[in-house]
Amino acid sequence: SKYEYVRHFELDDRCLPNSWIVVRIDGKGFHRFTNEHSFEKPNDAPALELMTRAARDVVDLFRPDLVLAYGQSDEYSFVFRRQTTVYRRRASKLMSQVVSQFSSSYVFHWPSVMGARALRQPPTFDGRVVLYPTDRNLRDYLSWRQADCHINNPLQHGLLGAGQPRRSHQRSGTAEERLRHTLAADKNEILFSEFGINYNDEPALYRKGTVIVRSLETPGEQDSKLSSDTGAPDGSTVPASEGARTDQKPVGVVKVLNCDIIGDEFWNEHSSVLSGNNKKAK
Amino acid sequence: SKYEYVRHFELDDRCLPNSWIVVRIDGKGFHRFTNEHSFEKPNDAPALELMTRAARDVVDLFRPDLVLAYGQSDEYSFVFRRQTTVYRRRASKLMSQVVSQFSSSYVFHWPSVMGARALRQPPTFDGRVVLYPTDRNLRDYLSWRQADCHINNPLQHGLLGAGQPRRSHQRSGTAEERLRHTLAADKNEILFSEFGINYNDEPALYRKGTVIVRSLETPGEQDSKLSSDTGAPDGSTVPASEGARTDQKPVGVVKVLNCDIIGDEFWNEHSSVLSGNNKKAK
Amino acid sequence: SKYEYVRHFELDDRCLPNSWIVVRIDGKGFHRFTNEHSFEKPNDAPALELMTRAARDVVDLFRPDLVLAYGQSDEYSFVFRRQTTVYRRRASKLMSQVVSQFSSSYVFHWPSVMGARALRQPPTFDGRVVLYPTDRNLRDYLSWRQADCHINNPLQHGLLGAGQPRRSHQRSGTAEERLRHTLAADKNEILFSEFGINYNDEPALYRKGTVIVRSLETPGEQDSKLSSDTGAPDGSTVPASEGARTDQKPVGVVKVLNCDIIGDEFWNEHSSVLSGNNKKAK
Amino acid sequence: SKYEYVRHFELDDRCLPNSWIVVRIDGKGFHRFTNEHSFEKPNDAPALELMTRAARDVVDLFRPDLVLAYGQSDEYSFVFRRQTTVYRRRASKLMSQVVSQFSSSYVFHWPSVMGARALRQPPTFDGRVVLYPTDRNLRDYLSWRQADCHINNPLQHGLLGAGQPRRSHQRSGTAEERLRHTLAADKNEILFSEFGINYNDEPALYRKGTVIVRSLETPGEQDSKLSSDTGAPDGSTVPASEGARTDQKPVGVVKVLNCDIIGDEFWNEHSSVLSGNNKKAK
Ligand SMILES: Nc1nc2c(ncn2[C@H]2C[C@H](O)[C@@H](COP(=O)(O)OP(=O)(O)OP(=O)(O)O)O2)c(=O)[nH]1
Ligand SMILES: Nc1nc2c(ncn2[C@H]2C[C@H](O)[C@@H](COP(=O)(O)OP(=O)(O)OP(=O)(O)O)O2)c(=O)[nH]1
Ligand SMILES: Nc1nc2c(ncn2[C@H]2C[C@H](O)[C@@H](COP(=O)(O)OP(=O)(O)OP(=O)(O)O)O2)c(=O)[nH]1
Ligand SMILES: Nc1nc2c(ncn2[C@H]2C[C@H](O)[C@@H](COP(=O)(O)OP(=O)(O)OP(=O)(O)O)O2)c(=O)[nH]1
Ligand SMILES: O=P(O)(O)OP(=O)(O)OP(=O)(O)O
Ligand SMILES: O=P(O)(O)OP(=O)(O)OP(=O)(O)O
Ligand SMILES: O=P(O)(O)OP(=O)(O)OP(=O)(O)O
Ligand SMILES: O=P(O)(O)OP(=O)(O)OP(=O)(O)O
Ligand SMILES: [Mg+2]
Ligand SMILES: [Mg+2]
Ligand SMILES: [Mg+2]
Ligand SMILES: [Mg+2]
Ligand SMILES: [Mg+2]
Ligand SMILES: [Mg+2]
Ligand SMILES: [Mg+2]
Ligand SMILES: [Mg+2]
Ligand SMILES: [Mg+2]
Ligand SMILES: [Mg+2]
Ligand SMILES: [Mg+2]
Ligand SMILES: [Mg+2]
Repeated sequence: SKYEYVRHFELDDRCLPNSWIVVRIDGKGFHRFTNEHSFEKPNDAPALELMTRAARDVVDLFRPDLVLAYGQSDEYSFVFRRQTTVYRRRASKLMSQVVSQFSSSYVFHWPSVMGARALRQPPTFDGRVVLYPTDRNLRDYLSWRQADCHINNPLQHGLLGAGQPRRSHQRSGTAEERLRHTLAADKNEILFSEFGINYNDEPALYRKGTVIVRSLETPGEQDSKLSSDTGAPDGSTVPASEGARTDQKPVGVVKVLNCDIIGDEFWNEHSSVLSGNNKKAK
Repeated sequence: SKYEYVRHFELDDRCLPNSWIVVRIDGKGFHRFTNEHSFEKPNDAPALELMTRAARDVVDLFRPDLVLAYGQSDEYSFVFRRQTTVYRRRASKLMSQVVSQFSSSYVFHWPSVMGARALRQPPTFDGRVVLYPTDRNLRDYLSWRQADCHINNPLQHGLLGAGQPRRSHQRSGTAEERLRHTLAADKNEILFSEFGINYNDEPALYRKGTVIVRSLETPGEQDSKLSSDTGAPDGSTVPASEGARTDQKPVGVVKVLNCDIIGDEFWNEHSSVLSGNNKKAK
Repeated sequence: SKYEYVRHFELDDRCLPNSWIVVRIDGKGFHRFTNEHSFEKPNDAPALELMTRAARDVVDLFRPDLVLAYGQSDEYSFVFRRQTTVYRRRASKLMSQVVSQFSSSYVFHWPSVMGARALRQPPTFDGRVVLYPTDRNLRDYLSWRQADCHINNPLQHGLLGAGQPRRSHQRSGTAEERLRHTLAADKNEILFSEFGINYNDEPALYRKGTVIVRSLETPGEQDSKLSSDTGAPDGSTVPASEGARTDQKPVGVVKVLNCDIIGDEFWNEHSSVLSGNNKKAK
Repeated sequence: SKYEYVRHFELDDRCLPNSWIVVRIDGKGFHRFTNEHSFEKPNDAPALELMTRAARDVVDLFRPDLVLAYGQSDEYSFVFRRQTTVYRRRASKLMSQVVSQFSSSYVFHWPSVMGARALRQPPTFDGRVVLYPTDRNLRDYLSWRQADCHINNPLQHGLLGAGQPRRSHQRSGTAEERLRHTLAADKNEILFSEFGINYNDEPALYRKGTVIVRSLETPGEQDSKLSSDTGAPDGSTVPASEGARTDQKPVGVVKVLNCDIIGDEFWNEHSSVLSGNNKKAK
């Protein structure tokens, strides 16, 4: 048709090959949204479960190219393997389907997870794509997100009082600044002495946030036939049956964990995440 | 923190100033999704209403910068005014929130529109941003989308038989090709003679698709107090009360219409859409 | 070969269609370069001629797609017609060849223009690509550059004294600030009263900078057969013979002028520059 | 001024951090240019020296961030260290100044290198920026360029006959295709048996192309005080005096070599090239 020339205004947005593609989504105005839906402060366990339930649908949508996801508060990060060629690595195709699937699953699974609390209005999430050229940069990105989670909890829990809008890019000098500069150990010390809270007793879900990992271990590792999601030491077990989308194919086992991902232990245990690429990765 | 350097890997994606920003979303695999949810073929009126219901939430989310939306089949296009500075014109911020709001509202409003037919799995939509530098290019884009809708209906309705997966970028020689090259008048002639269907009796919703327009007429123009969405000649009236988000502010009236947008008539009637920008637009 | 995969890391950088493509080059550290080569202050006529001589080679390299160039001081801007498809509008192909041709021609033509003053070291120019979606934006861009030239001359000539490094993006409060805010008329008044200089006697070359324009007038307009560069009222005539590259094809006449391009007069006289595009331009 | 708004149309083009930035320039239409200037076929030693003389000015312009350059035929590639922050990694600033300096130096040094053969017209070079995320990708890029040089010489020298336009991206089935698929050893065998040429006697300059490397060895390694460019085994020694720009600062020694860069030997000898970055490089 005479109008079809307009297609040529769609420009190519392929991502640089052999780089880690990270898509991060973050709830829009969740300070207000969580108040309007009376979320437990500072952490609402069912709500955090719902975030992970939506994230698992995203991981399934892009199996097996999406190798890891990490979520805390109202955000989730999704990591595509370095060599992925899904949708010819078109940034918009990946980012739009991640944030769309997350939003649609969040609303879809709300009733089954949030019980009596009805969803009053459809939430909005933003999304962005960031490329990380080296394994070191990717691990530092994930450490940044987990450290952000680690810093916040003691803050909101004891020092700042519930409901203090904690902005990830808070520059100004706030109590958060004071806490940010105190060592982790001292923080827990202050929490305990001043507020009688033993931070380590807090559930791992609140302290560590949630990691969804597709580890390409040999099938033998799969302990229970039933569940495609096996529990790790301090991870929660999610029965396969409940997951509308399960992944039994020999393309790996999806685990949901609440553990540290800043140290090397996690990465040694799930070496396929980083090494799952051919020699061109190095 | 020592990890914060990773923020500098987020590159700037501001759109070229003084250009029309169009975000188009399109259902992923809706051939299968519509079959799984037994959509009426080729057009399922409630489903098309649901698409528009979700689109109205997007238009409301970005009021008053989102000046027009056009939808047909499993797609919707959203047009931001040329001079918008919302989110500093960051492409990801606009595209991600459009596709996220659309997806979340689609699932949220499904029960109230689709009645007995339960949503069986959360749908996925893709999204993309396209810039159009001139008014002529923007009108040709919208004509391309409405022409695409116009072409398909007779196709699926009579010639191709229900369920034929109609791909917008279908290159191969199919019946659609034959029809595409016959003039509109002849198409209707074939439909009538060969299949006894009088195309013009089809509801405008199927022939024209749906236009949501924010016209900055003076409030006085608003005929019915009840609805913030006033019907135009062949447009459907949507009672304001039902819209969880209505827009009464003097930033314009949102109308939902099923009319031609290829000719000049629509554009003369809603001149503020194109001219709503200051002189720098020219 | 097993190494050829590296080609896929070259990403597409096509410019948005139907937009004006402007490439601006600017001498690197010309404050020092002009001192080292004892340029007349504030304007060295031969040096400004050399800039134009190099620019004409660039205009010729990209005939007929490069429709206008404007230069002043150590910079030159080159405007590609809105509909150009040269090198599939790849930004790097256009920008790199413009700045390369300019640099190589600048050095090549130096001896014939600068006479006794030998070039002591090879200069460096930077280059950038900027897109302008509308005719109004393009004219405002060119007005910005000519206004920049207009402001500087009185500055360096009388008020600031020679050699004051005049930076195009000078933010700080300098004499230039005081002058910038005084009206053009007052400026000339100050120059005359305080420094006895009648600004209007200055050659147009210094006051207006230089415009190279390819006007697609009918061949009949070409007054002298000999020269492909015809002089306009206050423009300098450049004999065709001297130009190693002349352009006699009926694709237009290249004129070198020193005239105002902020007002409408120039654009009415050379209407083909803006209108040289088909209807899709509007 | 009222026109200054046009500055905001200049969009940000920072390169992804912690990635190798490669700028490759290539002569435009050098098949014709080399014929017009009667270059020796297939390799014109002075002309290849001139390419390297221009490249050394580029390496000097960006010292110490430009860590390596590799050139053959009418092309040169320049590698910026992974962590460079020069010009805030703005792609246009780096690419434009590389191709501008190369072009201006090529013309500037022509007389002193090409002797009697006068430059008849100013040449044009194109330029492009390519990012490589890992050390492996960078080494494969450089191997691709040296392999390209290696393949061509026997081709032009004996098999194809001088002057056969050899295009780097030649797809069609030509004699080059036949040779490309024969092993290196066999190629030399054919050259020797059919054309009586012992390829290994060819100067390294023709077989290997030229590497300019800034190795951050301690100054002590500098054998001759005179020359800042020390010769390696089969490299050519360029007296410092002749280089208008020499680099004596303790930021490393610039060497000009004609050696293999596909194997590990070169990289072990000049380990600072790859490892010159802090731990974030990995
Ligand atoms: N009560 C409660 N609040 C939560 C929970 N998870 C997240 N939030 C709230 C705390 C923060 O105010 C907010 C997340 O911080 P953000 O920086 O994303 O703020 P917000 O989404 O309001 O602004 P944004 O639109 O992202 O810029 O969500 C939860 O489990 N319980
Ligand atoms: N039965 C029925 N089908 C519809 C209706 N609206 C859209 N569809 C179907 C017809 C097409 O097969 C499909 C839209 O065409 P697309 O080119 O978007 O195909 P699809 O979404 O399957 O593939 P995609 O993932 O977008 O590449 O959705 C409707 O109202 N009723
Ligand atoms: N004496 C003299 N100087 C000139 C002439 N044309 C340009 N210049 C000098 C005046 C300014 O110092 C300089 C142009 O201003 P710029 O803002 O481009 O400064 P410069 O090139 O030094 O810095 P840059 O590397 O572009 O950021 O060149 C001329 O005809 N005569
Ligand atoms: N005789 C001779 N020719 C050379 C020498 N170095 C390069 N050339 C010629 C051989 C090739 O025809 C040409 C380089 O190949 P290209 O693929 O760059 O071709 P060309 O520059 O003509 O086309 P282009 O504008 O780059 O697409 O330059 C030399 O030392 N002697
Ligand atoms: O909209 P904001 O303030 O969240 O802006 P942002 O780019 O999302 O900032 P951040 O990455 O810190 O959330
Ligand atoms: O995934 P597809 O095939 O739809 O690819 P696309 O880029 O979305 O193509 P189109 O714009 O034709 O839907
Ligand atoms: O290098 P500079 O300071 O000239 O930086 P720039 O981006 O070139 O700035 P301008 O466009 O003002 O010359
Ligand atoms: O202009 P060409 O044909 O050389 O196109 P190119 O993008 O430069 O191709 P190549 O990278 O193969 O030189
Ligand atoms: Mg944010
Ligand atoms: Mg948020
Ligand atoms: Mg958040
Ligand atoms: Mg599609
Ligand atoms: Mg679809
Ligand atoms: Mg569709
Ligand atoms: Mg500058
Ligand atoms: Mg300058
Ligand atoms: Mg300048
Ligand atoms: Mg090329
Ligand atoms: Mg070439
Ligand atoms: Mg070449």
